[in-house]
Amino acid sequence: MHKVLVGGEWRPAARPAGSFNALDPETGKNLPGAYPVSTWPDLRDALEAGAAAADGLADIGPGPIADFLEAFAGKLEERRDELARTAHLETALPLEPRLRTVEFPRMADQLRQAARACRDRSWCRATIDSGLNIRSKLGPLGGPVVVLGPNNFPFAFNAAAGGDFAAALAAGNPVIAKANPGHPETTRLLAEAAWEALQGTSLPRSAVQLLYHFGPEDGLKLVSHPLVGATAFTGSRAAGLKIKQAADRAGKPVYVEMSSANPVFILPGALRERAEAIVGELAGSCLLAGGQMCTKPGLAVLVDDAAGRQFTAAVKAAFESAGPGILLGPKVLQGLKEASARLDRSGAELVTGGREPGGPGFRFLPTLFRLPGAAFLHDPAAFQVESFGTLTLLVLARDAAEMAEIASRLEGHLTGTVYSHSGGADDAAYAALEPRLRRKVGRLLNDRMPTGVAVSPAMNHGGPFPATGHPGFTAVGLPAAMTRFAALHSYDNVRPGRLPAELRDENPTGRMWRLVDGEWTQKSL
Amino acid sequence: MHKVLVGGEWRPAARPAGSFNALDPETGKNLPGAYPVSTWPDLRDALEAGAAAADGLADIGPGPIADFLEAFAGKLEERRDELARTAHLETALPLEPRLRTVEFPRMADQLRQAARACRDRSWCRATIDSGLNIRSKLGPLGGPVVVLGPNNFPFAFNAAAGGDFAAALAAGNPVIAKANPGHPETTRLLAEAAWEALQGTSLPRSAVQLLYHFGPEDGLKLVSHPLVGATAFTGSRAAGLKIKQAADRAGKPVYVEMSSANPVFILPGALRERAEAIVGELAGSCLLAGGQMCTKPGLAVLVDDAAGRQFTAAVKAAFESAGPGILLGPKVLQGLKEASARLDRSGAELVTGGREPGGPGFRFLPTLFRLPGAAFLHDPAAFQVESFGTLTLLVLARDAAEMAEIASRLEGHLTGTVYSHSGGADDAAYAALEPRLRRKVGRLLNDRMPTGVAVSPAMNHGGPFPATGHPGFTAVGLPAAMTRFAALHSYDNVRPGRLPAELRDENPTGRMWRLVDGEWTQKSL
Repeated sequence: MHKVLVGGEWRPAARPAGSFNALDPETGKNLPGAYPVSTWPDLRDALEAGAAAADGLADIGPGPIADFLEAFAGKLEERRDELARTAHLETALPLEPRLRTVEFPRMADQLRQAARACRDRSWCRATIDSGLNIRSKLGPLGGPVVVLGPNNFPFAFNAAAGGDFAAALAAGNPVIAKANPGHPETTRLLAEAAWEALQGTSLPRSAVQLLYHFGPEDGLKLVSHPLVGATAFTGSRAAGLKIKQAADRAGKPVYVEMSSANPVFILPGALRERAEAIVGELAGSCLLAGGQMCTKPGLAVLVDDAAGRQFTAAVKAAFESAGPGILLGPKVLQGLKEASARLDRSGAELVTGGREPGGPGFRFLPTLFRLPGAAFLHDPAAFQVESFGTLTLLVLARDAAEMAEIASRLEGHLTGTVYSHSGGADDAAYAALEPRLRRKVGRLLNDRMPTGVAVSPAMNHGGPFPATGHPGFTAVGLPAAMTRFAALHSYDNVRPGRLPAELRDENPTGRMWRLVDGEWTQKSL
Repeated sequence: MHKVLVGGEWRPAARPAGSFNALDPETGKNLPGAYPVSTWPDLRDALEAGAAAADGLADIGPGPIADFLEAFAGKLEERRDELARTAHLETALPLEPRLRTVEFPRMADQLRQAARACRDRSWCRATIDSGLNIRSKLGPLGGPVVVLGPNNFPFAFNAAAGGDFAAALAAGNPVIAKANPGHPETTRLLAEAAWEALQGTSLPRSAVQLLYHFGPEDGLKLVSHPLVGATAFTGSRAAGLKIKQAADRAGKPVYVEMSSANPVFILPGALRERAEAIVGELAGSCLLAGGQMCTKPGLAVLVDDAAGRQFTAAVKAAFESAGPGILLGPKVLQGLKEASARLDRSGAELVTGGREPGGPGFRFLPTLFRLPGAAFLHDPAAFQVESFGTLTLLVLARDAAEMAEIASRLEGHLTGTVYSHSGGADDAAYAALEPRLRRKVGRLLNDRMPTGVAVSPAMNHGGPFPATGHPGFTAVGLPAAMTRFAALHSYDNVRPGRLPAELRDENPTGRMWRLVDGEWTQKSL
């Protein structure tokens, strides 16, 4: 049985409740290697070591943390082929280009961006009121950040190396990573590289810890424990809501990215102008990675006219010609079956797919439903179902006005997209639609599908509930994502020599941006 | 019975569950004027009108909102004497200087600061990634902000004119104000001035609404309603926790400022150097406004030696010579009795006070408890009780090391203060204490009591749970307090003419600060 990484050491799980294997999604069979299901003694040890590591990290400042993040990225690159092969085996995501050439470099780049943001220090929003001698900045939380990673990005969102990991460390917090049980070996290898990178640094040995699995009760106890700093979770709505509730009750910051239908509105002029191209983009976006993307369009809205019906037929054809994707695991398959059944029960009409194709492993046919706009408006909640995988509902509205009305009845989603005529023929419809859609989504797109999530300082990979738990934060994009893992620290009349470097009169790097008496500046006082 | 302000009109409460009067704290008797206890029809109407007003505010931009905030401040100043007299009658807080000369101008200044921040636009953290054409900013929540004001600041924290009100409006959100039942007439007059100021503007009529009271069930339904944008509450821990739980479950942002013991650590050198001055500062801070301050020191920690015992005696004498303060109302009196009884039961020793002095109205003797450090460490939670009013616990530690250990066992508080020797004799003790205290408090002070809360951009009037619900936000200080009432809005590939002014290539004011490709700048692209 594999060892957990607790308190700076790879050690056998203290009193495991059992073990699990990863599954090969292509065959549904066990992969070699058993991973422990930890119980409270492991979690408690990780919390206590993490709390001590929080003290240590607060002392050493950003330089060594940035060095570590960069060393870690380097160690990972030495193992790129092994990591990509392992992730492919555990997830069935394409080795090329997806895992090796797209997601792997993204992971390494995120670590390096986080290192730069950490070293730059501007992320902490140092604010100086020189007249009153009150100074403030964002600082670490004082406890470890628990990161619970999703199944669909074994690198870029991995609990032991992905965006939340990088953001939490760069903000000065230790991480307790919990592997996604879909890819424990990938996660073990990542944590091993992190552990190796730690050895050469002054960071506390427990700055990075790894557990593979634990029961839901222990998980809720963990995220609500007094020693924890915060929690970041990416996954299903059911699990996210439980984690959020437990942490909220304990007053612990919690960031859950739970689900999103990512509505795409295709205005009539756009359809007249370039239906074929949009069919290709929508189908491509829905089919990418078997539809197992947080930002996959699960809902597309257009007008129910000849062009709309032709569009439906073309998407159907594209879905059918693609064939079934291999899913990450049995839960994804189960979720797609349930979502199909729910849409069917609610009165949506199945256009294609909706079932397993047969064969080994975890597969489901690309699935398209359609529904009149009036039916959507009659029960909007019923048709914004969590559908992780290629399952999309086309809503055919009476006219552009009904499309805007549909936008008003949306829940919170990560993204909202509007395709419109390039010459301005849809501008009036856009103007009516945009304000309604804007408030329901974190990222608003024009004429581009939402599946790509760039690591940009201006990105918002977040959105109103139930997409996430708070509309003010993003999980992707540096340095913005770091602010989730920070507390506001004000210093009132504190003696100069006792201030953190970022708040002293002298700019600690000469280049750090600080808000001094209302002006952003890189100058010293 | 007074009218509520709903949907832009002063109207009788729809189906009130009853009425209430304000009490004169000096006599405990009813003041004239009956105010309705609203039921769901009023709350529903306010929500619906507020949701419509959110649309309207999003359209008009910051200029008219800033004009309104300034016009409101002007209207208030025209009524300053009447308002100060009314607040004095309802709260028994001193007319001069407190209400008329300190708190009133602070309220007006906050409104004007909010107007400036609104017009300046830099608060929204416009971030432009010109290479990828992704742009983001903070934007309004899309629904009204419910503000539930506290009893202790009838002006500066009033739901209809105080800091939360100003911050929510300046961030582009309508406000549904709920008066504190301790000062309904003050709140009515403030809302009347707001309503008058609204008339001359292009703001939606329902940008400001007022209810006086409603039952707890309706309140929880309100803060968790789909149409609501967010909630801000300042008050007791019991009420705050219920509101937080209801809003959290619904995924609605909620900011609760609940309670804080504001620990003050007096290191041995400081006591040797200037015990008398510190006694005066501590007693003054504890006695200010009858101790009814969010930032009143409820806990002071010092070494149990001759100096410490002399200090205790001097604070006792100062408390006794001050005499009983008049409290804001019967709940405050009840809270002090309960806190005293709880400390007594837990084993703290009563030094002075601990009872009502007799006489009319709501009064309690300034109350001092003491406790050995070891007893505190044995059960830290028992001794961090909510004690709103002049009630302070002196913890007498074995030595400076035990003082640091006590800091480690603190809950989250708004402030933490350290008094130390001016010549450096306490520097080693400070270095051991500071990291432990830093993580437990929002604002760390040196050599100054925490009761004053300056309206500074670097202020943090916030702190880790249970002081508030999230350690990353402040309720005081502009523009920081505005960010609580905002959602992150990202625009990905959105056509230039469709971007909000703050995100277009041209800087909309020529002076707004924006983060463009990693540099803070006032330039256009």
